[in-house]
Amino acid sequence: MSGNSFGNIFKVTSFGESHGEAMGVVIDGMPPNIDVDLVALQAQLDRRRPGALKVSTSRNEADKAIILSGLFQNKTLGTPIAVIVKNTNQKSEDYKDIKTSPRVGHADQTTLDKFGIKDHRGGGRASGRETVSRVIAGYFAGLIIPEIKINADITQIGEHKLASGIDKKIEDYLLKLKENGESAGGEISVVIENVPKGLGDPCFDKLKATLSHALLSIGSCMGISFGIGEAFKEKLGSEISTDRNNFGGIEGGISNGEDIQLKLIFKAPSTVGKNAKEGRHDPCILPRVAPVIESMIKITLCDHYLMQKSLLR
Amino acid sequence: MSGNSFGNIFKVTSFGESHGEAMGVVIDGMPPNIDVDLVALQAQLDRRRPGALKVSTSRNEADKAIILSGLFQNKTLGTPIAVIVKNTNQKSEDYKDIKTSPRVGHADQTTLDKFGIKDHRGGGRASGRETVSRVIAGYFAGLIIPEIKINADITQIGEHKLASGIDKKIEDYLLKLKENGESAGGEISVVIENVPKGLGDPCFDKLKATLSHALLSIGSCMGISFGIGEAFKEKLGSEISTDRNNFGGIEGGISNGEDIQLKLIFKAPSTVGKNAKEGRHDPCILPRVAPVIESMIKITLCDHYLMQKSLLR
Amino acid sequence: MSGNSFGNIFKVTSFGESHGEAMGVVIDGMPPNIDVDLVALQAQLDRRRPGALKVSTSRNEADKAIILSGLFQNKTLGTPIAVIVKNTNQKSEDYKDIKTSPRVGHADQTTLDKFGIKDHRGGGRASGRETVSRVIAGYFAGLIIPEIKINADITQIGEHKLASGIDKKIEDYLLKLKENGESAGGEISVVIENVPKGLGDPCFDKLKATLSHALLSIGSCMGISFGIGEAFKEKLGSEISTDRNNFGGIEGGISNGEDIQLKLIFKAPSTVGKNAKEGRHDPCILPRVAPVIESMIKITLCDHYLMQKSLLR
Amino acid sequence: MSGNSFGNIFKVTSFGESHGEAMGVVIDGMPPNIDVDLVALQAQLDRRRPGALKVSTSRNEADKAIILSGLFQNKTLGTPIAVIVKNTNQKSEDYKDIKTSPRVGHADQTTLDKFGIKDHRGGGRASGRETVSRVIAGYFAGLIIPEIKINADITQIGEHKLASGIDKKIEDYLLKLKENGESAGGEISVVIENVPKGLGDPCFDKLKATLSHALLSIGSCMGISFGIGEAFKEKLGSEISTDRNNFGGIEGGISNGEDIQLKLIFKAPSTVGKNAKEGRHDPCILPRVAPVIESMIKITLCDHYLMQKSLLR
Repeated sequence: MSGNSFGNIFKVTSFGESHGEAMGVVIDGMPPNIDVDLVALQAQLDRRRPGALKVSTSRNEADKAIILSGLFQNKTLGTPIAVIVKNTNQKSEDYKDIKTSPRVGHADQTTLDKFGIKDHRGGGRASGRETVSRVIAGYFAGLIIPEIKINADITQIGEHKLASGIDKKIEDYLLKLKENGESAGGEISVVIENVPKGLGDPCFDKLKATLSHALLSIGSCMGISFGIGEAFKEKLGSEISTDRNNFGGIEGGISNGEDIQLKLIFKAPSTVGKNAKEGRHDPCILPRVAPVIESMIKITLCDHYLMQKSLLR
Repeated sequence: MSGNSFGNIFKVTSFGESHGEAMGVVIDGMPPNIDVDLVALQAQLDRRRPGALKVSTSRNEADKAIILSGLFQNKTLGTPIAVIVKNTNQKSEDYKDIKTSPRVGHADQTTLDKFGIKDHRGGGRASGRETVSRVIAGYFAGLIIPEIKINADITQIGEHKLASGIDKKIEDYLLKLKENGESAGGEISVVIENVPKGLGDPCFDKLKATLSHALLSIGSCMGISFGIGEAFKEKLGSEISTDRNNFGGIEGGISNGEDIQLKLIFKAPSTVGKNAKEGRHDPCILPRVAPVIESMIKITLCDHYLMQKSLLR
Repeated sequence: MSGNSFGNIFKVTSFGESHGEAMGVVIDGMPPNIDVDLVALQAQLDRRRPGALKVSTSRNEADKAIILSGLFQNKTLGTPIAVIVKNTNQKSEDYKDIKTSPRVGHADQTTLDKFGIKDHRGGGRASGRETVSRVIAGYFAGLIIPEIKINADITQIGEHKLASGIDKKIEDYLLKLKENGESAGGEISVVIENVPKGLGDPCFDKLKATLSHALLSIGSCMGISFGIGEAFKEKLGSEISTDRNNFGGIEGGISNGEDIQLKLIFKAPSTVGKNAKEGRHDPCILPRVAPVIESMIKITLCDHYLMQKSLLR
Repeated sequence: MSGNSFGNIFKVTSFGESHGEAMGVVIDGMPPNIDVDLVALQAQLDRRRPGALKVSTSRNEADKAIILSGLFQNKTLGTPIAVIVKNTNQKSEDYKDIKTSPRVGHADQTTLDKFGIKDHRGGGRASGRETVSRVIAGYFAGLIIPEIKINADITQIGEHKLASGIDKKIEDYLLKLKENGESAGGEISVVIENVPKGLGDPCFDKLKATLSHALLSIGSCMGISFGIGEAFKEKLGSEISTDRNNFGGIEGGISNGEDIQLKLIFKAPSTVGKNAKEGRHDPCILPRVAPVIESMIKITLCDHYLMQKSLLR
């Protein structure tokens, strides 16, 4: 696997810089003869777009999915599915300072360190815009294991713990952050239901390992924990060994048929101050990141699922 | 990559069940003409063996590394390095209950779910014994990037936060746990010094993503976080964006030349009660897991390092 | 590797069906900071188009390369390069009989056997049109090892052995075939100059093995031989061991710095009779296949070259 | 895939130098719960050993397969199968001249060119001895698709065309070659029966491409052709398009359920003269190479077969 592909036999290859011509994805290993609903695909893309919340970035592109290959009469052909989304709204002047001042917490300097060259007009490959490709791939992965249900809930934003989603109070908090050129991080808690037993591998590709790879590849995600998470540090063996649920649906690296439970830590966006007030920047990415999380989980589970099919008679 | 290999071009393939003939590893992609010190390799293997602490499992095998290929006159040939360690001390009767009673928190039941067959004599591939293979591979990875220094310190065991390693108080605590058939989890904090700039990839193989894959593939590791970790949830953007160090040495998925900082959550071993008192089980794996953590980090960094070499003129 | 990708670290992923929206390719692993000449890229694409010879298929599409990602100001960024070519000239009615009558020697029936579904409007992934993607990737591969020179000469068409390319006699022969709804195969002989020493691997990825994989993945290529080829069957050891050149530039699977010599067998296109007269079909693919052969060779050598760079200090 | 592994999900990793401690193989992706017959495995290894013919190399090692992992009570566990064969009969003094005089047609010089170091005691990874690993892997691959039957017949040795295997005349010819320090090449013709429909991929992993990769990775194999082979050069489209059999069981890169037919060209061993008379060298490798050919074919088909299983419901 090179760094722009993910998966063994459900292989997702992402391409596109934030200020280039288009973002896109190629999915190799999609099983044939599966019905595709282009309206549902578009709905997934729309979920990751700003606008649902007033505070999100004003880079509100149409993000229309254009299918280049792999479908015929709305069925998968078993051939590579290529989908692109054009970058129609690149205001690269918004980023004109990056050329001379690499932003702390961004890929600006490290991209130069690595490649010796950089498209200074934006975040390039490390931009949040790249997640368009992941959401498209996640839609197709979801068609393979439709019974799986993923709930990704925001359980903390900044100092606020959330019991039931974003309410008026949190929305006001986010608006205030935006006005002040400030930003916040938080926590997303995920429960995955109806995972088949037997997914994952006992060695390097333990399900918790590949899920961590998938989810820590999301830009601002800074941590992950499974089951009871941080509480594992203090709980004694006798306290956790009585109940399978403590392990979050994975034992010995393999799904046990119970719900998979995990928590993700997100950092505040690094763009703050004057730029954050004026530019097209979110004060908090958590409201937009749920479809990306769900997509990476679907892609991961789907690859394990197809691997498992090849093993069994 | 199938589930028993790790790495793109420094490719580590692990094999062996805990109660089979031998554990072993094949390393493909080892550069040629590098001096190998077999005494130093053996010293790494000895570090992960029990015995340093009285409380560790009494399965104290010699773990002698036998080199099968890849070396000539103590230099690497550039050909695959195969090393095995024989399983000389399998007391499978210790595990006789597993056949009928799968252990909670272990791979017993999930291995059956996945494969429909299991060697009932022990933990099989998911056993801690498999980490022998990782430590061997880690030694060789370390030869490629010798300047990197990894400090993996235990910072919590059960309810005890540790400032300076395991002292008499903690050792007594662990002995007491063992006597009671009890076990504890904890936290290990890692600092990696002298990491070259430019390792990692801006997309799926962000350095934090591949390190997470590597480290969450260790049996009892239940969580990882980078930089200031849990604190990211509450810190505002203005609080973190002033200091690069908050991001733990990785920006945009790529190493920035600063120290990489990460924390790992470990659960208590699931074996408790009568079995834990009598069998060869550790009441806490943290004292033994440091060389495994270091090895997985070296393997990961080394693979990124060789990938990076291929890119640059 | 899944079936639509080729290469380890210079990884080419091809997509597109002959009668879908577009053909395309993603190249992951392209080194950064390399100058790209879009006119030269287009010239390569034009070489594989029909028209140079009057007898070629009348499906004469513009085949304009559209760069979607990976370039900035005509330099490579080190990010994935995605390029597409639209299918603007799909006359699917030409293929209307395929739906009911699978063509012998084509992928029509086997695609159904494999996938259970098929875009009946043309050859799908197995179409010669897919080679557009390969020629694009070959152009970029060629930028990495510009010193390599590949000569792919037609040395036989049907019953005619060619000493110096296609002359008037051969052109007449081909026109006659077309008029008669007939087709011919032949032989292409390749000499690759200036190959660096040390490319290839002593085991499964011997250079002759990966070149064979690359070249036999071209639709009508039915055989390959290296060095003196067929003559190896009768030559005694003493006759061949005196001259390195007999081995065609590869010893023990690794390039030795001499010219690499190989020969390829091509079958006649399977479309004959009425369809061949009327449809957009070539009576012989050899005049158009040279740029595809060169591209697959460049892709293969370039991947070995980058792998080799990662090994050496 | 690095150069010592072959296959996507039935992944074979070979290791061992001819004069090191042992040859070996790790097979990752072997389905669980399959009965293994160790006597039958040993019989396959014995087939590739010298001795059946008096003229073969006198390096007649026991080649006893030692199972290190992956089996329990003679059933596969679904975990990696590791098998080694010790090198007990290394007479490295036989090779003492190699150190100073690299042999033409061998890997001696190119190994140095590539790695800058070489075990001068023998052929290293490029030695025929490495095929031990392939035969072991081939045995296990054969268990997955037991219905497939492979016939690999010698159809030419030197100037002699063979109708029915090696008879007294050919045996005398080979003995004479050996006495004279001479060697011969030849041709092996392969028919593969009972291949399931649908194996192979329409693009880079056409079945003819992966089979070519597999078979050209055998040391002295210098060419391959499918179906009617060389005759394709002269046959017109109308002559071949009437009969599926001409295409050798593969259409559009995918198996069509008919017998797969292919021919392989082998060169004469490069060791001739004084060394060939005295050393442990075969005057012709064809009598010993059939099990290696069969093994590489089984490995290739088995990988495609498991990939295909993952695709279909």
